[in-house]
Amino acid sequence: MKRTSIPLSERKNLVIESPIRKLVPYADAAKRADIKVYHLNIGQPDIETVPAMRQAYSRPPEIIAYGPSQGLPELREKFVEYYQRHGLNLSMDNIYVTSGGSEAIIFSLMAVTSPGDEIIIPEPYYANYNGFVAMSGAKIVPVTSRIEDGFHLPKIEEFEKAVGPKTKAIMFSNPGNPSGAVFSRERLQELVAFARRHDLFIISDEVYREFTYEGRTAISIMEFEGIEENAVMVDSVSKRYSACGARIGTLVSRNQEVLDLVLRFAQARLCPPTVDQIAVAAAVNNSDAYLEQVRFEYKARRDFMVKRLQAIDGVRVSSPEGAFYIIAELPVEDTEAFAVWLLRDFQLDGETLMVAPAQGFYASPDLGKKQIRLAYVLTRDKLERALRILKAALASYTQKSRV
Amino acid sequence: MKRTSIPLSERKNLVIESPIRKLVPYADAAKRADIKVYHLNIGQPDIETVPAMRQAYSRPPEIIAYGPSQGLPELREKFVEYYQRHGLNLSMDNIYVTSGGSEAIIFSLMAVTSPGDEIIIPEPYYANYNGFVAMSGAKIVPVTSRIEDGFHLPKIEEFEKAVGPKTKAIMFSNPGNPSGAVFSRERLQELVAFARRHDLFIISDEVYREFTYEGRTAISIMEFEGIEENAVMVDSVSKRYSACGARIGTLVSRNQEVLDLVLRFAQARLCPPTVDQIAVAAAVNNSDAYLEQVRFEYKARRDFMVKRLQAIDGVRVSSPEGAFYIIAELPVEDTEAFAVWLLRDFQLDGETLMVAPAQGFYASPDLGKKQIRLAYVLTRDKLERALRILKAALASYTQKSRV
Repeated sequence: MKRTSIPLSERKNLVIESPIRKLVPYADAAKRADIKVYHLNIGQPDIETVPAMRQAYSRPPEIIAYGPSQGLPELREKFVEYYQRHGLNLSMDNIYVTSGGSEAIIFSLMAVTSPGDEIIIPEPYYANYNGFVAMSGAKIVPVTSRIEDGFHLPKIEEFEKAVGPKTKAIMFSNPGNPSGAVFSRERLQELVAFARRHDLFIISDEVYREFTYEGRTAISIMEFEGIEENAVMVDSVSKRYSACGARIGTLVSRNQEVLDLVLRFAQARLCPPTVDQIAVAAAVNNSDAYLEQVRFEYKARRDFMVKRLQAIDGVRVSSPEGAFYIIAELPVEDTEAFAVWLLRDFQLDGETLMVAPAQGFYASPDLGKKQIRLAYVLTRDKLERALRILKAALASYTQKSRV
Repeated sequence: MKRTSIPLSERKNLVIESPIRKLVPYADAAKRADIKVYHLNIGQPDIETVPAMRQAYSRPPEIIAYGPSQGLPELREKFVEYYQRHGLNLSMDNIYVTSGGSEAIIFSLMAVTSPGDEIIIPEPYYANYNGFVAMSGAKIVPVTSRIEDGFHLPKIEEFEKAVGPKTKAIMFSNPGNPSGAVFSRERLQELVAFARRHDLFIISDEVYREFTYEGRTAISIMEFEGIEENAVMVDSVSKRYSACGARIGTLVSRNQEVLDLVLRFAQARLCPPTVDQIAVAAAVNNSDAYLEQVRFEYKARRDFMVKRLQAIDGVRVSSPEGAFYIIAELPVEDTEAFAVWLLRDFQLDGETLMVAPAQGFYASPDLGKKQIRLAYVLTRDKLERALRILKAALASYTQKSRV
């Protein structure tokens, strides 16, 4: 029997394994040893899915048929109203429903970049961007934002240094994952001017738009004038309605050429899931009370996290203004080793925690080695336990290192 | 206000607009003029979704959370059993759940081809392959199968002529869309030997596996020995359970490198839809009676279509052995013009029909111009009406042309 070893796609070299995934075997081993693991490493909220959606699932159509490739018209109409309520004047034609925000990002990249093109992304950034960009064949050029600036957008000089003849787009998430930063209008305005100056697309990932604190508001890229041809917005109901598994997102643009090309990709894959779209349509414009509650809960968790992390010796945190993540700088040399140690060698009363080493959110080598991302997606009593563990673990780990 | 016109991705030039989509405005106009349009142009069955699935939707979890990127383990286990019942020995590790067969094809292409690579596809082929291949950056090299051969696999000499240094894979659907051909073991065995000889991947799209007639059986690429490293199977429950809108498919392989790379792509997009997976799991291994009925119904429709089409003057049909499509060669010069004429200029008692001009299923220029694809996805009384219209239309159209 011949066993060929056929060379795979060159994409193989572009897709980096996520440092979070590398920790999974250690977490599994800890659980097998009956240690309880608090998962602060992933953005899967513990909050119940919005009731209107759950109810709507119980009435699937007799034939679960293909819907239009752009998404069900009844859902796109609801989104028009939703965005209108958020000050965005859009028509159904500007809004395509996608299989999660993920597909919206893939389609955006496929539409605006060719293999070999470059895309500027402020780091730290959502690590899955690596996979999407690898699929598209483009290349990420990072611009570094810093914890001491609260991970706000870097100065335009930094972007100017990163731009080159192959640059086709800027991409970011706002509110930011993993940073929790919410970008100011002034910085965004500068970035918009920069994008116009260099004829760049802006792909703005706004899936955390509903979760802002401290009086901050998420400013959408679609609010800016004069960049109708440059702007592509990515959105999702995953976090908003705690419905990550429904896989319903949107791609929004006013650039007709982009919309036309994205439609071709959308037609190839036929349609987003039909019953999930029906469920989301039932929730989009009548879930304000639910969202208010969820926002209140995240705000309380955030306040708790910031306060308790600041109280740990040697820990520095950025004060996140949105999303449900916080980056903490720890008094350790390599948070990946620390994260493994937490799972393999540490426990407090039979419990430990799993964190996301931040290096995976940076493209520049060696950045973020002292940082971790914590997702405050657990109830406050669990966060309380988790931070008690973190504090004890750091005391033990740093003492151990000194010996 | 500056309005930039930023060049889009070069993929723009690769994605061909589907000839079916071009007809949509004519169909819409006919409907506005109160003409009833029978849709034989698309593969959306009128058959009720399998009851076990519909029932399972009514119990969504409290938190519709992300599932594993490979798919829910309980669903993958069911698929192991399903494939076992079809003679395929696979483990859970060989099977990933995807967002429809579409995503399985995209992932396959992303994993095995790099931009600029070539992929051999027997034509006529499923037109959406064009979009998927454009996304991947690869290029289609067609090998022509012919109506007089029942659209079976072309001889290996034809494949030998198409192979070159950039060829990375062969892709086909079996049972075939749009042809309805079911490939014989002998021809498949030759193709397997060819793939081994040239170190090519085989991407076998088997979404119509359950629908074969005339004693034919769909032979899976996973049955062949010695090509464990070459074979990637694509499957979907869309047609099987008449659940096209559920967007649940599978990517199956025994090549660990392919599985590892596909997993990275799968991780980037997080997961397939959760509730739909739960619904499918409820149906996979207890829907044999349903499938038996559906198969019986399609067989009856197929027999009816073949018989009635053969009875129309100047029409030639291939006798499809699987799927639910039939290609007919008409006594007209250009079926695209004929399809437009049907919608714009013809009616019989206030009714007309929409067909798929077959040219869009060919990559070679000018092939398929006399052919159409008909999907027998409507009840027999509707097919009866539709074929009566087709017969009258052809009489009128060919008379008109002679004048």
